[in-house]
Amino acid sequence: MKLGAIEAGGTKFVLAVGNDQGELLEKEVIPTDPPEVTMPKVIAFFEGKGIERLGVGSFGPIDINKESATYGSLQKTPKTDWVDYPLGKELQDKLGVPVVLDTDVNVAAMSEAKWGNASDVDSCLYITVGTGIGAGAYMGGQTLKGLSHPEMGHILVRRHEKDDYEGGCPYHGDCLEGMAAGPHIEKRWGKAASELQELEEVWEIEAYYLAQALVNYIYIVSPERIVMGGGVMKQKQLFPLIRKKVLELLNGYVSSPSLTEETIDDYIVPPGLTDEAGVKGALYLAM
Amino acid sequence: MKLGAIEAGGTKFVLAVGNDQGELLEKEVIPTDPPEVTMPKVIAFFEGKGIERLGVGSFGPIDINKESATYGSLQKTPKTDWVDYPLGKELQDKLGVPVVLDTDVNVAAMSEAKWGNASDVDSCLYITVGTGIGAGAYMGGQTLKGLSHPEMGHILVRRHEKDDYEGGCPYHGDCLEGMAAGPHIEKRWGKAASELQELEEVWEIEAYYLAQALVNYIYIVSPERIVMGGGVMKQKQLFPLIRKKVLELLNGYVSSPSLTEETIDDYIVPPGLTDEAGVKGALYLAM
Ligand SMILES: Nc1ncnc2c1ncn2[C@@H]1O[C@H](COP(=O)(O)OP(=O)(O)O)[C@@H](O)[C@H]1O
Ligand SMILES: Nc1ncnc2c1ncn2[C@@H]1O[C@H](COP(=O)(O)OP(=O)(O)O)[C@@H](O)[C@H]1O
Ligand SMILES: [Zn+2]
Ligand SMILES: [Zn+2]
Repeated sequence: MKLGAIEAGGTKFVLAVGNDQGELLEKEVIPTDPPEVTMPKVIAFFEGKGIERLGVGSFGPIDINKESATYGSLQKTPKTDWVDYPLGKELQDKLGVPVVLDTDVNVAAMSEAKWGNASDVDSCLYITVGTGIGAGAYMGGQTLKGLSHPEMGHILVRRHEKDDYEGGCPYHGDCLEGMAAGPHIEKRWGKAASELQELEEVWEIEAYYLAQALVNYIYIVSPERIVMGGGVMKQKQLFPLIRKKVLELLNGYVSSPSLTEETIDDYIVPPGLTDEAGVKGALYLAM
Repeated sequence: MKLGAIEAGGTKFVLAVGNDQGELLEKEVIPTDPPEVTMPKVIAFFEGKGIERLGVGSFGPIDINKESATYGSLQKTPKTDWVDYPLGKELQDKLGVPVVLDTDVNVAAMSEAKWGNASDVDSCLYITVGTGIGAGAYMGGQTLKGLSHPEMGHILVRRHEKDDYEGGCPYHGDCLEGMAAGPHIEKRWGKAASELQELEEVWEIEAYYLAQALVNYIYIVSPERIVMGGGVMKQKQLFPLIRKKVLELLNGYVSSPSLTEETIDDYIVPPGLTDEAGVKGALYLAM
């Protein structure tokens, strides 16, 4: 059986045809332009290929509540051309096959749990720290979803005592994303995050915010592993700083062999998958 | 088929025999004394009744990770006689039937989703604000669990600007539980929470902390309804204060018809079930 897969990202769409063994047979990458430019290319790629179902891992926020009238529609995305665009419905109507849709970060969490750095455990939370901050979780054999696309990147954090950056989230000011996403590191320090490697204070403050988020995720969903990806996490020195801060904040409260000084290096980890994770995950959604 | 059910609480154990239609046939309530006093009574109640499985909703923290070597054991509970007590294993060994175990708050969330104030939606988060603060969630047809018993009551909150109470959690000081559980309201104001009804500032501050927690739960697990119970929530004036603050903090970010001024009264609600919720939920676990 042939299946379709789309990794719909803010900068590019990865389109693929695969089979029900999870193997990719054909792949194409196109840029993310406005829907009237991008979507005809997407439809053209799949037409006539005989796919029986289509899996989509999409940028967001996107409505992934199957009961909702706007299931599969983009929401308040910063890519304004796509706001309210009914991505799922459009694909289903034009291609005439069932479409299964999830968020990019949920798909990443699932992929890491299946084939990546969380393949030896049953649950995984994936967080990306890049232009924005987003996270997804895979647990109990499914990705986490409820009322809407969870927006784990916007949780409340406490301000670092040495930090007077006002915060840049247009909705919340100093939420996690407004304090710790790449563009806000740049605004706080007046230089691109990638050029601040030597400045210890930058990463001390960054780790403080990210550790708070991780601690709340641990208290609330209790994943068996946390995978951290995205552009900002290329600063590898963040990992030990975050791990240390997480243990400090938990202060021994959660009794788990995964959360000790000896084991936390295997609990908070970088991604195990690289390029094909998104589209492979999307294919898995269709399986 | 006959099934056993236990609601194991910090003050009492509710024991019941039911059938696989979810009907209770027989019930007994015993006090929560140290295990060597309570457990023989529990065993005696079930012996010879021909139950084929046993469901348990337990106070905690308790290890509910089935892969764990200490599955079913109590952890750092303030009821010190029960610390490390292997509740699940003991029941299984003595009664010779499979034991299915979950936290009291997960069971409450499931019960509210099946029979209570969330029976019209698919997912529900239940939070109790009492001697401590705990929460559980039911979504995607199962309760939320991962590495360990989630400890949603200990998330980080931002201090209210008018509040100088230092916080009373022995692990974290000013975490949510340390700021907002019943005993800490009492310590902050020098009077039992139940006697502070007239003092607006008390509930303004309380609502601020609880709203922060709810907002983080919404961002992270995105339940379709939030049910708030426990002794402190008997102060009904908290509900409108919390709802207002939640909308303020979200600031329009989450696009959902459930999260508007018109609809939030049906999103953040009191429990629909009372006395038998715990034991009925435990029976359901065994089904
Ligand atoms: N080497 C680096 N060190 C620190 N920050 C980086 C680095 N590379 C990229 N970034 C940051 O990551 C952001 C881009 O994130 P990325 O995950 O690559 O893309 P996106 O989030 O748009 O999918 C930029 O805002 C930049 O600040
Ligand atoms: N009417 C009330 N108003 C405010 N607080 C109350 C009221 N009744 C009980 N409480 C608080 O709730 C706590 C007990 O919580 P409860 O949920 O009844 O039990 P537990 O958490 O021990 O299971 C007490 O600490 C008390 O401060
Ligand atoms: Zn925000
Ligand atoms: Zn605490």
